[in-house]
Formats: sequence, structure tokens, C-alpha cells
Amino acid sequence: MENGSTLKKKYWRFRRNQEMNMSPEITIRGVRYMIMSKLNKSDTRPVIPLAHGDPSAFPCFRTAQIAEDAIIHSIRSAKFNGYGPNIGILPARRAVAEYLSQDLPNKLTEDDVFLTVGCTQAIQTILTVLANPKANILLPKPGFPYYEAVANSCHLEVRHFDLLPEKDWEVDLDAVEALADENTVAMVIINPGNPCGNIFTCEHLEKVAKTAKKLGILVISDEVYDHLAFGKNPFVPMGTFGSITPVVTLGSISKRWIVPGWRLGWLAINDPNNILKEHGIIDCITRHLSISCDPSTIIQGAIPDILGKTKEDFFLKIINIIKEAANICYEGLADVPGVICPSKPEGSMFVMVKLDLSVFEDIKDDVDFCLMLAKEESVIILPGITVGLKNWLRITFAIEHLALEDGIKRLKAFCERHSD
Amino acid sequence: MENGSTLKKKYWRFRRNQEMNMSPEITIRGVRYMIMSKLNKSDTRPVIPLAHGDPSAFPCFRTAQIAEDAIIHSIRSAKFNGYGPNIGILPARRAVAEYLSQDLPNKLTEDDVFLTVGCTQAIQTILTVLANPKANILLPKPGFPYYEAVANSCHLEVRHFDLLPEKDWEVDLDAVEALADENTVAMVIINPGNPCGNIFTCEHLEKVAKTAKKLGILVISDEVYDHLAFGKNPFVPMGTFGSITPVVTLGSISKRWIVPGWRLGWLAINDPNNILKEHGIIDCITRHLSISCDPSTIIQGAIPDILGKTKEDFFLKIINIIKEAANICYEGLADVPGVICPSKPEGSMFVMVKLDLSVFEDIKDDVDFCLMLAKEESVIILPGITVGLKNWLRITFAIEHLALEDGIKRLKAFCERHSD
Ligand SMILES: Cc1ncc(COP(=O)(O)O)c(C=O)c1O
Ligand SMILES: Cc1ncc(COP(=O)(O)O)c(C=O)c1O
Repeated sequence: MENGSTLKKKYWRFRRNQEMNMSPEITIRGVRYMIMSKLNKSDTRPVIPLAHGDPSAFPCFRTAQIAEDAIIHSIRSAKFNGYGPNIGILPARRAVAEYLSQDLPNKLTEDDVFLTVGCTQAIQTILTVLANPKANILLPKPGFPYYEAVANSCHLEVRHFDLLPEKDWEVDLDAVEALADENTVAMVIINPGNPCGNIFTCEHLEKVAKTAKKLGILVISDEVYDHLAFGKNPFVPMGTFGSITPVVTLGSISKRWIVPGWRLGWLAINDPNNILKEHGIIDCITRHLSISCDPSTIIQGAIPDILGKTKEDFFLKIINIIKEAANICYEGLADVPGVICPSKPEGSMFVMVKLDLSVFEDIKDDVDFCLMLAKEESVIILPGITVGLKNWLRITFAIEHLALEDGIKRLKAFCERHSD
Repeated sequence: MENGSTLKKKYWRFRRNQEMNMSPEITIRGVRYMIMSKLNKSDTRPVIPLAHGDPSAFPCFRTAQIAEDAIIHSIRSAKFNGYGPNIGILPARRAVAEYLSQDLPNKLTEDDVFLTVGCTQAIQTILTVLANPKANILLPKPGFPYYEAVANSCHLEVRHFDLLPEKDWEVDLDAVEALADENTVAMVIINPGNPCGNIFTCEHLEKVAKTAKKLGILVISDEVYDHLAFGKNPFVPMGTFGSITPVVTLGSISKRWIVPGWRLGWLAINDPNNILKEHGIIDCITRHLSISCDPSTIIQGAIPDILGKTKEDFFLKIINIIKEAANICYEGLADVPGVICPSKPEGSMFVMVKLDLSVFEDIKDDVDFCLMLAKEESVIILPGITVGLKNWLRITFAIEHLALEDGIKRLKAFCERHSD
């Protein structure tokens, strides 16, 4: 009797947090798992993963020896077993400041750098710090949905501006001006681009800074794919224009060193005019980090060596593999019916392609496309809706070349089979 | 002209998050740093740190060789460089389930375990998941102030019950019943105790479970100091009573392996009746973790070896050092005027002592005491107010014995000098 009643929901007083979104997962990871669940287990061919911004499982993408050695050194020294300061240990912050300063007109110091648990926590931190009742933030479309998830959870209103496929995915700056109002606090750019695989020109970045300045807002520049540039435009850090408008740069070792599991990132302040400090933003970042997670001290201890000692050889090798993969992907896609690639990818690990659904007999939309493709061809691609563009696809080309060729071949067979 | 106006605060539209507490830091770390800033730099004696729950810097507290080797193995395998699932990788969750199950009547499986960035993130997760408008949570006084900080940030009302010094710091269960109302969702216990250095008896834990069951609330059991017990009571996990009331156990490798910088913890569900699952709490934990930080995969990869292969020798060595340190501390304090130690510490790394301020000529309160002590004797102790008890002190005895003896001697000299 008593037992019966205690099993009833009414008995217990705790409830799940009602604010937490009840809708299905919108994370890339969630959608990826959903698509993977459709794989046909009797297909004996290897699964081709073209949806995953993490090539670390492929031997050719193994991280630099020096990075592994740095961790081992850190462990064996027994100097990095203890708690560190919440903003990160000094030698690591200094190393990040030096690393970023190589490409900047205004040099950073350790006081401009906060270490985070991957770029992910840097995103969470800056959005939380800027959240206030009525405040809104401008996010790119297509983009990286983690921004929307965090903005939601800290009640920051989101407004989307377009990236323009016909202009190499540049920011629609007119749209930015039209969207902004007195409650707009910041705009986000992702450069090198996820999901678009573009690199903004120096001129465009300057225009972004000037627009932001005009609007009185902050630029948050997600440079997690920093230096992964292999086309006509070199990678230019947005911090270059920190004297025009305050710039907060987010980054990590996840992509360039191909160690996303290590969880070491940063938030860097490019603000030679000290505007953020005067507005209490820096203090608020420190406060937020004081009750948040810290990156592992073992990894922090290795950061000076990882950033300072990795040889150019390693970077070149990786860039060459990715560049060649981008070629294979772009050229292969030219032959695939119903799939349109507006521009050749020049950075990061991704390309956005548009579906021409009129070509297909029995495919409703991008999600449908990806589910059927997984089932029939054991190829995993991310539906564009996940990154904000319905009936597009995001393809990751940073995988081993043979696997990539195989994947594009299967994609082609699939599209041919389903077209009129 | 233009430049002048853009430097004015009114120009820029971003504002710091107004919700974030403007008051000075209440974290233990913050207070510790504040006290350390009072150190007299011309004192040539070594600083004695008796405020820091992290003995990793002392050679005698170096972690187990097997733990270091496990990380190196994890790195060299190149299998743990990539992203893992947000709840943690399967082999690590399974290893934690097995580790905890050794001491439990109801065995856990990997599905009961969520990996977190230290016990800290486990605290953050469960409090956030339980937060709802009007909900309140019962926290121990004295306690661990991170609970208050997180509860604040997720708008969970806090009510405090006393731990009773005259009863070996047992929970005042009458107070728990008197405090609880229909909006109470959970109570927290910390066992082995921080800051009290006590170990709850099995009988007392059962009473806690029965009280919680009667109130229809969850027990959150912070066992970050698990197995650090060296007195009359053995350490009994609260999960033992998970069939009476749902129990969420929080833990980490930070304390038992003395590697708090590695940032690997867990949240484990002891709920054989599946009450939490039925209430959507488990789903909500998964959701929360899907937008939160992840522990480093490198450390996760090492967890099966760390938990499974660490030799009893290592644990015994550490326990013996801490036990002996507790003796040195307790016996040394008996001679110190104005300081009363209600019971000998039997677990964790701490003891709470009461100040008899009437003994001192010129000391106002516990904060004053600690600031002056740092300045005059280069000994760092935490004022009790930080953990909820004004005019008490929290002393950490987990340091090398000679340093501890020196620290107690200086404390004694200080107290004698300042007493009538
Ligand atoms: C644009 C963007 N920002 C941030 C992140 C997160 O980076 P990290 O793994 O360092 O947390 C990613 C990961 O894919 C990303 O694509
Ligand atoms: C009671 C208690 N809970 C949780 C923690 C945090 O543990 P971790 O370092 O594993 O995050 C501490 C750290 O001192 C603690 O004393």
C-alpha cells in the first residue's frame, strides 16, 4: 500500500527542470546519432562518416608527436595534478597570448586570455556574460547550432543574418544593420567557416568590424578552425580589427591539432581601448568561470609546448591532406545529380551543398535524404536543417582520401538511383 | 569627437549579465587568495597552507604510478583524441559503475553513471536539473559553498539544516523535517565530511534515507572524499539506501587519487525503483550534459585502469599519512588557547575548530583571525564563515607532517601572543 503510493508521481516532490527544452535534441551530435541509427547492419561495406567534424580516428590525422609528448611530460613532472586558477594556469595563458599575437597588430598578454574546456565553454561563457533581459544576439545562418542552444538556455534572444552563398558566404551586412536594435549586444562570425568552408577576406572582416562599431556591438569571432585555410584567402584573425570594435576571439586546439577530446580552448580579448573592461565584461567572465568547469590541468601544463613547439611540417601535412580532400569532394560532387555546390571550400573541414529536390522521385527533404542515404549506402551526411538551411547538406571532407572517394561514389549512385 | 563618444559607456550596447552576483567572491578559492594576499613577503619561513583541499603539491601525496601510466597509455594509444559522447565514454562509465558497486547492495550499470568535469560539474548538473520556480533544496551548515553558488545561479532556493558538533556532526534530522515543505526537492549530505572531517554511521545514513522518503525528496550524497576514512566508522556509501529513497551520488578521482587538476568526476544514480527515470530526471541530466562541458577523453580513457588497477598499497599509504596528520593536528590543537576542537577528525582532510574570541585581546572575528595569522605567521587557514559557521576555522591537515607540525606551532604562538 505504502509502496504503491510512493511509486506514484504525485508522491515525490522533485520535478525535472521545466525550462529545459522538451523538444528533440537539436545538437549536431544528436542528429548524427539519429541518422546513424538508420544504418543497415547487413551492409558489409564500411560506414563513411561525412557528418563529423572530428577526423582524429583516421591514422593520417593523428596529432603531432610533440603534442603527445607534451602531455606525457606534463604527467611525469607531477606538477600539474593540482587545482589551477579558474581562468587557467599562467604559463598556459601566456602561451596562448603569444600564439595568437603572432598574427595580430595589437599584442595580447596573459590577462587577455581565459582558458576554457574547449571552444564550447568559451561560447557558453561569452553568451552567458552578455545575457540580460531583452538583450539579443545576431547569429549567422547557416551556423553552428550550439550557439542557439546556449542562447536559449541563458535567455538571450537570437536573430539570424544570412551568409550569402553567391558571395562566397560573406555576411549579409545590410541584414545585420536591419536586424540590430538598441538591445543588440553582439554578432557572431565563424571564420574559417563552419558549415560553409569559406574564409573571409581581410576587407570583409574590416567591414564587419565597422558595421559592429556603427551599431555599438561586440564581435564574437569563432576561430576554432584557425589556420585551416587552403584557398585564395589567407586566414586573418578578427582581432586584427579590435581597435575598431571590441572583438572576443574563441578558439581551441581541437581542430588544428585534431585533439577535440582533450578539451582545451580559450577566450581572448582583442580590445586595445579597454571598452570591455570598462563595461565590467572582463570581471563578469572571471566570475562566470569561477563557478564553471575547468580544463584539465594536465592539458594546460602541456600547452606551452603544444603551441610553441609543434613543427610547421605537421601543419603543412594536415593542410595538404585536407586541401586534397576538398578537391576530391568538390570535383566528385560536380557529377552528382541533384546536388549543387555553390563554391569550392577553402577552409575548415566542411562544404554546404544545395539539394535540387525536383531531380529526385521519392525524396521529401534533406532529413529524408540523409536517412535514406544512411540506410542504403552507409554514408552519413548532416542535413542542412541542423545548421539552419533546409534542403541543403553539410558534408565533412576531412577524412581519408580513399574513404572520401568511396563516399562520394556511393552518394552519386544514390542520387542517380533516386532521380528521374 | 567620434572617438570620444565611443569610449563613453552609453555608446556601447552590451552590458554585463546583471544577474551575476556583484558581491565579492564567496568561493573558497576566492577567500583563500584574499588571505594569501596578506602574507608578509619579508617572512622568510615557508608558507604553511592549511586551507587547501589539495595536497597534490607535496611529494608524499604524489598520485599512484598506475594512474600516471594509465594516462600515458591513453595518450600513446591515440584512441582517445576524439570527441566522446556527452555522458562519457562507455568503458569509463562501466568502470565507475563497477568501482561503486563493490560497496553497494544494488549493483550499478553504465546506464546509472554520467561522467563529469570533476565532482564540481556533477553538483552543477543535479542542482540545475532540479531547479524550478519555487523549488528549494536543503543544504548542510557548515557545508561546501559551491552548492550555494550554483543554487543561486540556477534560482534554486536554499535552506540550511545544521550539522551538530556535539553529535559528531550528524545531520539535525528534526531541523530537516521542520525546514521541508511541498517545494523541497532534495537534501545534500557530504560524507566523508567537508568541512567537518566526520564519517556518518550506517545507522545515521539509514535515518537520513527514511527522513527523505517521508518528505518525498531526493538525497544528493557528495562522496568526493570516498574511502578517506580512518576512525571508528567505516565509509558507507549512501547508495546503500537507494531502495528507500532515490539517491544521487557525486564523486570524482580528485581526492582519493589526489589529482584534482585532472577534472574527472561522476554522477551516479542509486534508484532501483526507477523513480528518477519516471520523473524525467535522468533524461534531463542527459539534456543538461549535452550542452555542458565534457571531461577530457584522455582522462576518460585512463579511468578503467585507474579505478581497476590501483593497488591497495597506495590507498593504505595515503590513508596512513592522513590519519597520522589528523592525530598531529588534533593533539597539537589541544594546547592552543582560544581554539576548541569538538571532535577528532575521522575522515576527509579537514577539521572544524571553534574560536573562543573572549580569549583574544585584539581579534574581532574568524576572518580577522585568519588575516592576522597569515600576516604574522605565514599560515593560511580558512575562516569558518566561508563554510557557513562564523567564528570557527576550517583547518586542512592533509599536508606533510613536518609542515603541519610547524603550522600548528605557529598557530599556537599566534594565539598565545594575542591572548590575555
Ligand atoms: C564553429 C565551432 N565552434 C566551436 C566548436 C567547439 O569546439 P571545441 O571542440 O573546441 O569545444 C566547434 C566544434 O565542432 C565548431 O564547429
Ligand atoms: C565537498 C566537495 N564536493 C565537491 C568538490 C569538488 O570536487 P572536484 O575537484 O572533483 O570537482 C570538493 C572539492 O574540494 C568538495 O570538497
